[in-house]
Amino acid sequence: MKDTIRVTVWNEYRHEKTNEKIAKLYPDGIHGAIANYLKAQPGMEVRTATLDEPEHGLTDEVLNNTDVLTWWGHMAHGEVSDAVVDKVHARVLSGMGLIVLHSAHFSKIFRKLMGTTCNLKWREIGEKERLWVVEPGHPIAAGLGEYIEIEHTEMYGERFDIPQPDTLVFISWFAGGEVFRSGCCFHRGAGKIFYFRPGHETLPIYHHEGVLRVIANAVRWAAPAGGPKPTFGNVKPLEKV
Amino acid sequence: MKDTIRVTVWNEYRHEKTNEKIAKLYPDGIHGAIANYLKAQPGMEVRTATLDEPEHGLTDEVLNNTDVLTWWGHMAHGEVSDAVVDKVHARVLSGMGLIVLHSAHFSKIFRKLMGTTCNLKWREIGEKERLWVVEPGHPIAAGLGEYIEIEHTEMYGERFDIPQPDTLVFISWFAGGEVFRSGCCFHRGAGKIFYFRPGHETLPIYHHEGVLRVIANAVRWAAPAGGPKPTFGNVKPLEKV
Amino acid sequence: MKDTIRVTVWNEYRHEKTNEKIAKLYPDGIHGAIANYLKAQPGMEVRTATLDEPEHGLTDEVLNNTDVLTWWGHMAHGEVSDAVVDKVHARVLSGMGLIVLHSAHFSKIFRKLMGTTCNLKWREIGEKERLWVVEPGHPIAAGLGEYIEIEHTEMYGERFDIPQPDTLVFISWFAGGEVFRSGCCFHRGAGKIFYFRPGHETLPIYHHEGVLRVIANAVRWAAPAGGPKPTFGNVKPLEKV
Amino acid sequence: MKDTIRVTVWNEYRHEKTNEKIAKLYPDGIHGAIANYLKAQPGMEVRTATLDEPEHGLTDEVLNNTDVLTWWGHMAHGEVSDAVVDKVHARVLSGMGLIVLHSAHFSKIFRKLMGTTCNLKWREIGEKERLWVVEPGHPIAAGLGEYIEIEHTEMYGERFDIPQPDTLVFISWFAGGEVFRSGCCFHRGAGKIFYFRPGHETLPIYHHEGVLRVIANAVRWAAPAGGPKPTFGNVKPLEKV
Repeated sequence: MKDTIRVTVWNEYRHEKTNEKIAKLYPDGIHGAIANYLKAQPGMEVRTATLDEPEHGLTDEVLNNTDVLTWWGHMAHGEVSDAVVDKVHARVLSGMGLIVLHSAHFSKIFRKLMGTTCNLKWREIGEKERLWVVEPGHPIAAGLGEYIEIEHTEMYGERFDIPQPDTLVFISWFAGGEVFRSGCCFHRGAGKIFYFRPGHETLPIYHHEGVLRVIANAVRWAAPAGGPKPTFGNVKPLEKV
Repeated sequence: MKDTIRVTVWNEYRHEKTNEKIAKLYPDGIHGAIANYLKAQPGMEVRTATLDEPEHGLTDEVLNNTDVLTWWGHMAHGEVSDAVVDKVHARVLSGMGLIVLHSAHFSKIFRKLMGTTCNLKWREIGEKERLWVVEPGHPIAAGLGEYIEIEHTEMYGERFDIPQPDTLVFISWFAGGEVFRSGCCFHRGAGKIFYFRPGHETLPIYHHEGVLRVIANAVRWAAPAGGPKPTFGNVKPLEKV
Repeated sequence: MKDTIRVTVWNEYRHEKTNEKIAKLYPDGIHGAIANYLKAQPGMEVRTATLDEPEHGLTDEVLNNTDVLTWWGHMAHGEVSDAVVDKVHARVLSGMGLIVLHSAHFSKIFRKLMGTTCNLKWREIGEKERLWVVEPGHPIAAGLGEYIEIEHTEMYGERFDIPQPDTLVFISWFAGGEVFRSGCCFHRGAGKIFYFRPGHETLPIYHHEGVLRVIANAVRWAAPAGGPKPTFGNVKPLEKV
Repeated sequence: MKDTIRVTVWNEYRHEKTNEKIAKLYPDGIHGAIANYLKAQPGMEVRTATLDEPEHGLTDEVLNNTDVLTWWGHMAHGEVSDAVVDKVHARVLSGMGLIVLHSAHFSKIFRKLMGTTCNLKWREIGEKERLWVVEPGHPIAAGLGEYIEIEHTEMYGERFDIPQPDTLVFISWFAGGEVFRSGCCFHRGAGKIFYFRPGHETLPIYHHEGVLRVIANAVRWAAPAGGPKPTFGNVKPLEKV
């Protein structure tokens, strides 16, 4: 592994520009809140990118120099260009880590990587959530207690229409009666993907120490490990046949 | 489970029409060889569909009355219409079984469901393959010995760029020095998918008793089980919050 | 698969003999309640066995003629002889299905098969449980709605110290704030194991239609599929080396 | 994660003392060959322990100060005391990493953790093995090419009677016609386990750069991550019921 992980924090960055309450909660945008936390971590080099920049801020130069990309989107999934989605997809398959946050379950990139609808149940009444760690030996659970509690949150409930995760790290309990697979690890191609449920534009979820710590852990876990670059296509036999 | 499994055997059906040797090997087409075997199984109702029929033979009426679809394609993946692929995709996610055969690893429908390139190594020198059963308790291995041997086959080698299967049933050994995850089970949505490697247009693979038996087993395993139809979207709390 | 599944329903059968309230709830014992339901299923041949019978009712003759064994125990795990546990263990590895119910998470046989402590959190205040189906395509979810609700139950909470299940079918929500992986599928050797959480001696859980249906589904899923009997030890090469 | 990983390299250390050829191949014992390589890695503090030391060199003091234990045994599995096995088992479940090498598939500790026989096929004719990387994004594959080749080795063949690994990293091809799941990751309790096939007492496998690199990678992967210590037993509700 390289010494420094180059992280790009991507954010749709629309809610913050149109809603005063949200702007106040995230004065630097949701990307700013996440990036500021990650910048304080040892060994991370952090930049941000947003939807309304040219190429959504994800030029070839940026993508080729990103080890882990975090993704938050909600109201404008449809405005993300297919060309950029295809590039991000190719980068993940060739080894870039991807951290998919909250409502980005419905982003084009996550759905393309999962192959399923990624649909779920939801409700916005600010109820309580408790994320239980079910795989305590996993590095994404480093430094946590047995659960993370979020006093007021949007609910996401099962059935969450995703492939069975390679490793399930968190299961959420919600006051209203639902459960959710909230922390899901996937290998896809040479890349690693972590879906992490918490996060909302009108709630201070991305100021929550536990949530931020999980994101930082996930960035470390998803960083490229330096394995082989598979080759494909027609090959000669390695043995006499 | 219903008493009868309605199977649709889909085939590209091009090689057989243009190459005399292949036509002789599969006088009823590859679909015919597979369908004839399945028709002799108890509890299966079998029809076929091919690329050059209107809507590739996969009309709404056909798809809505198919419990398990088997898919063989090779030279004309690109000619399968996206509209039909989208319909098949939706049907799998809502419960239809899908058996993906050999070179259909590169079919639009399999790649869309997997979210990865599904690329691999290959070689056509007619070498020997031995498929080892690595999960002997799985119903897809019913009636088999410890391995299936295929005297002359096309080689497919790792890295096979797919998500880790939910269950890995077969691993292939090839004389030329490669290995391959040859029998892979996946849940996607409410549907079950089985990728099965053997099969080639110029070789009598679909006349091989072991190969045909696995396809029949896989059809039974992938048949819809009658579970719940998940609902999605905004929901009221089930508990007082 | 054979036409008839031979099921042995095993029960510790102690609570029912010493506690009047429990005896009234389960006049034929917990095993009786489960066996009566299974007997009404097509294609099942059902017998029972209990701790205080000679060899706990699990003689070689019984075990060798059992396709699927269901196991309930609670207060007397330690009284189950190691010799019988070793025999059951060997039978599971050679293909017999095993359904592990509720407090049998702490049975010798389940712990031996899992290799972990199988420990968990618990509480007996008769709170509400809701078991969400998270893998709707799995045959164990056949005939169910999106969740099973149990009005009054003992709580089991994560961390449940088991290996990651091969397939996770149910996750429970509890009123008191916990979650639990309540329906867990495992392949071990040639056998299939299903752990199912609900069930308690002082509550009518084994009269609950949804719970009983899951047990019957699990019996069908866990029945031996007729795959190969692996051989082990020193072997000659299959190819010229 | 702590800065330094404390590794204990355990070896049966019998073959080397009784067989001149083996002694010449591994003058410091197999443990010496492995330990010497690991000592040269940044951030590893390495000691060794062997069967014939008091408590097999695995005193409480040693175990409590071991982050990752590597285990090689072959002819004397039965001489490892059950008390020590129980202690190692408990340490793994509470977070210590365990690397299980070659013939240690039959060690008491591995079989206890897996819950299965861990049996396999084998043959000693010094044939060729090729270990293919099937999960190139996994950290255990760091720095490797697409495969590792071992010119002369003992063969291990499927069916390998283990639970399905959480992640399968390597599959071996053997000249004699078999395949093997050669690099298998498991979570058990809070601990991580890696089974790695290569290695033999009469062959210079533990002088092979690729093999040693995998062992070093595995040590890093298996090191405790600092997650929560689960608590078990009776608990009060976290919510008003």
